[in-house]
Amino acid sequence: MLAANGGRQAVNDDSPRSAAALVIGNELLSGKVQDQNTLVLARSLRSVGIALRRIVMIPDDLPTIVSEVRSLASSFDLVFTSGGVGPTHDDVTIAAVAQAFDTVVETDPDLARVIAEHFGDAVVPGHLLMARVPRGCELITYDDLKWPTVRMRNVWMLPGVPELFRSRLASIKQHLVAGTPFVSRSVFSNLDEGHLVPLLDEIVRRFPTVDVGSYPKWNDQTCRTQLTFDGTDPAMVDAALQAFLALLPPGEPLRVT
Amino acid sequence: MLAANGGRQAVNDDSPRSAAALVIGNELLSGKVQDQNTLVLARSLRSVGIALRRIVMIPDDLPTIVSEVRSLASSFDLVFTSGGVGPTHDDVTIAAVAQAFDTVVETDPDLARVIAEHFGDAVVPGHLLMARVPRGCELITYDDLKWPTVRMRNVWMLPGVPELFRSRLASIKQHLVAGTPFVSRSVFSNLDEGHLVPLLDEIVRRFPTVDVGSYPKWNDQTCRTQLTFDGTDPAMVDAALQAFLALLPPGEPLRVT
Repeated sequence: MLAANGGRQAVNDDSPRSAAALVIGNELLSGKVQDQNTLVLARSLRSVGIALRRIVMIPDDLPTIVSEVRSLASSFDLVFTSGGVGPTHDDVTIAAVAQAFDTVVETDPDLARVIAEHFGDAVVPGHLLMARVPRGCELITYDDLKWPTVRMRNVWMLPGVPELFRSRLASIKQHLVAGTPFVSRSVFSNLDEGHLVPLLDEIVRRFPTVDVGSYPKWNDQTCRTQLTFDGTDPAMVDAALQAFLALLPPGEPLRVT
Repeated sequence: MLAANGGRQAVNDDSPRSAAALVIGNELLSGKVQDQNTLVLARSLRSVGIALRRIVMIPDDLPTIVSEVRSLASSFDLVFTSGGVGPTHDDVTIAAVAQAFDTVVETDPDLARVIAEHFGDAVVPGHLLMARVPRGCELITYDDLKWPTVRMRNVWMLPGVPELFRSRLASIKQHLVAGTPFVSRSVFSNLDEGHLVPLLDEIVRRFPTVDVGSYPKWNDQTCRTQLTFDGTDPAMVDAALQAFLALLPPGEPLRVT
C-alpha cells in the first residue's frame, strides 16, 4: 500500500481545480491557538492554479467530521484535512474519514514499520496507533519525507502542527496537477468605496470573467481602498484593470501593482 | 426600527450557548489576507460562556452565503457573519441574509440618516447603499458606537475590517447573555503523546464531562506536550487534572497552569 514517490499517477489522472480545507481541533474554536495552516494552504494551492473555495473549522467530534468529510469530498475536487492524526483520544480524523467512505480503520504494516524505525528503542504501543489508516487509502511518500501522507480518494489528511503541515504540503504540491495559474493585479486609490461603486459596477458588468474585489484600507495612511482584479486569463485581467483606470478621476490611482 | 441601547431585551430572552462564525470574502480564500476575526470572536464568546462550535469561510457568492446562513442559523443559537457589508458589488451579505430568511432588502430610513450625518457634505449615493438591511431585522446601537449593528433573528452581521469587527464585538458582548463560564487548565509534560495515550484514555473515561486535549509542542524546547482540561464545572475540571497528575511518573509534570 506504500506508494513510493507517489500516488503521482493517481493524482495526475484528473485535473483538480477546486479545493476545500477541513480544519479539525477544539483548540482553534476555543481561541487557544490561531490557525496558521489555511493561509499557507490557500497560497500553495493558488500557486498551482487550484482555488480554495471553502474552509470549515470543527471540533474533534467524530460524527461532525464524518458528515463534513462526506459533504466536502463530494462537492470539491480536493479536500485537505488539518489536525486530528496523532495517537491520542482526541485524534479521530482517520476514523472519521474511514467512516465517511464507508470503510474501516486498519493498521498498515508498512506504516507501522516506518513508525517503529522512527522511534527505535523508545517505541511504545501508543506510537503505533499512528499506523491506523482507512482501508483502501494510499500512503504517499516523497524523497524528502520518510513518514507518508495518507490520502483517501480525494481527501488528503495532513497533521495540524503548523511545521509539519507546511512540510507535507510542500511535498504534496509537487505532485498536484497544476491548473491554469491565477493572475492578480491591484489598484490603490484614495477614493472611498462609496465613490467607487458606479465605477466598479461598470467593470464588473463588462468583464464577467474577472473577479473584482474592493477592500477598505482602514488605518492605512497611504490609501483608502485597494481594488483587486483576479482571473486565469491575463489579457482579460489586464483589460479590466485598464478599463478601470480609465474611469478614475485625475490624480488617481495612487499606485498599481 | 432603530433600537437604542438595544435589542438588549430581545437578546436576553433566551440564553444562547452555541455559536457559529460565517466569514465571507474571496480575499481570505485566495490567501491575500489572514483572517483575524475568528480568534477574537472565539475568545470573546468564550469569556461569556458561549462556545464557538463552527467556523465556515466562503467566497462573496450569494447562493453559497444564503445556503450557509440557513444551515448555521437553524443549527446554532447565535451566528456571527464577518464581511460583505460594504456598498460595493462584492458586498452581498445583507442580500444573502435577507434571502436566507425569505425576506427582502429595504433601505432603512434611520440608518440612511446615520450614514448621511456620518459623511456630511461628502455623502454620495454609493454610501447610502449601506443603509440596505433585511426587512424585519433589528438595528442595534450602543452608547459608544453611532453606527448600528444589524441583527436578523439570531444572525449578527459584522464588518470584515478587523478594527471594526473588534469594536462592534466589544459592544455586542455586553449585551449577550453570559452562559456558565469555561474553566481551562493546562499541564506541560516532557512525555510524548505515544506515552501519554493510556493515561489520557483513563482520564477521559473517568471524567466524561471534561474536555481533555493533547497538543504536541513541536519546536518548543521547554516541553513535549501540552495537556488541557476544560469544562464548565471547576470542581470536575480540577478533579480530572489531579487524577491525571497522579498518573504521571516521577519528574512529571514540568508545569501546571
